[in-house]
Amino acid sequence: MRHIHVIGIGAGNPDHASIQAVNAMQATDVFFSLDKGEQVAELTAVRTELCRRHLDGDYRWVDIADPPRDRSPDDYDAEVRRWHSARADAIGDAFRSELDDDGVGAFLVWGDPSLYDSTLRILDDLHERGAIEFTHDVIPGVTSISALAAAHRIPLHRIGESMIVTTGRRLARDGGWPSDVANAIVMLDGDCSFRHVDPTGIDIWWGAYLGTPHELLVSGPVAEVGAEIQRVRAEARVRHGWIMDIYLLRRDS
Amino acid sequence: MRHIHVIGIGAGNPDHASIQAVNAMQATDVFFSLDKGEQVAELTAVRTELCRRHLDGDYRWVDIADPPRDRSPDDYDAEVRRWHSARADAIGDAFRSELDDDGVGAFLVWGDPSLYDSTLRILDDLHERGAIEFTHDVIPGVTSISALAAAHRIPLHRIGESMIVTTGRRLARDGGWPSDVANAIVMLDGDCSFRHVDPTGIDIWWGAYLGTPHELLVSGPVAEVGAEIQRVRAEARVRHGWIMDIYLLRRDS
Repeated sequence: MRHIHVIGIGAGNPDHASIQAVNAMQATDVFFSLDKGEQVAELTAVRTELCRRHLDGDYRWVDIADPPRDRSPDDYDAEVRRWHSARADAIGDAFRSELDDDGVGAFLVWGDPSLYDSTLRILDDLHERGAIEFTHDVIPGVTSISALAAAHRIPLHRIGESMIVTTGRRLARDGGWPSDVANAIVMLDGDCSFRHVDPTGIDIWWGAYLGTPHELLVSGPVAEVGAEIQRVRAEARVRHGWIMDIYLLRRDS
Repeated sequence: MRHIHVIGIGAGNPDHASIQAVNAMQATDVFFSLDKGEQVAELTAVRTELCRRHLDGDYRWVDIADPPRDRSPDDYDAEVRRWHSARADAIGDAFRSELDDDGVGAFLVWGDPSLYDSTLRILDDLHERGAIEFTHDVIPGVTSISALAAAHRIPLHRIGESMIVTTGRRLARDGGWPSDVANAIVMLDGDCSFRHVDPTGIDIWWGAYLGTPHELLVSGPVAEVGAEIQRVRAEARVRHGWIMDIYLLRRDS
């Protein structure tokens, strides 16, 4: 049967890849890609570097293009269902045409496949549809959360504390950062949502382009460094054409 | 100046170690260990396996024994301060006597150094005391959280949701799992604390000895599999003499 590895390759530094990830890559016939969006070039560079270092050149890359999507449909749910179905067909077709019956494919996922990534959901959807049979496994990777903490050389929490991992959108909501939870890790934030939290007694550790040569780090009380982070982020985004950042917020104990 | 690598080696599988971790290990003169407790044998086995595979045999291991500690002192805070001071002295002495002035030491940390591990706090404490000068850096590792999700082949959250990472002790408290947060990852739980949460509409993904040949996985509605997990966990703990487990709880959406 066809088999698919879903491989976490870490957060920006090709050397974040684990030995398990490299072994799985070396056992792969075809690398599939579902990329879109502005960080494609950087992702592709990390993947190319990984393949260059660890593979002998006898591998293939197949980009699976997203089917066209109506972004302002009359019936939103129906359009999402139609689009998911079209995407599943495209992926199933790619597995069928690019992999032998016992071939091995792989997706190289930024960070870890369990965190804010859709690859596993898409494969589950494909299994449920039943149009093509395959097995899959998951190789865990270094998350951008761990990369942030490592770059700042900090633990993510004080002794015995809990932390919430959330999105910029949720942080800005009422109850988005429960008062009993001392630490909040914020991902997918295009808007510096920490601006919407009362800065009194809150420290921040911010990082962008973690693990890459462009890595940026700022930390301190939000009241003192919040404006600087917004400025640095805006400048970097213009300079690079894209940005991926993450931060930790911590309440005074 | 002396330099210390704090290296995350992943959660149980020696192949979780990253290329960056292996490179840092190869640049290390002396590996220091602060271990204690029941999982020492298993940790030592993973570390030994890592060193056997990736080093040429020209490395040294130095165990830094914890100073004796009064577990029921009259003045608890004073005893903790005295003990921290004695421990800092022991580590500083070990750096001084085992490392050349420009020598490189390392700590190999289970999982990732940012998550429920004390090594970074201890080094910060040493820096503050100022009795010995050194620099240090952190190599991020695959967490047991990612290893749990990979073993179950699941994302840690549904689309756009947040998650809390907490301890068994906190989960059992009022407000320990805020109602606005759909997902809870529970670590350091010696007591199956999910028993203290109303199981209605809650699913669990449980794993023990993740990434090792002894890996155990159970998942399903807490109401259906909760008792099984308690039984499997108790049996495994007796069989192996120790257990390290972790789980994800998710509320129905």
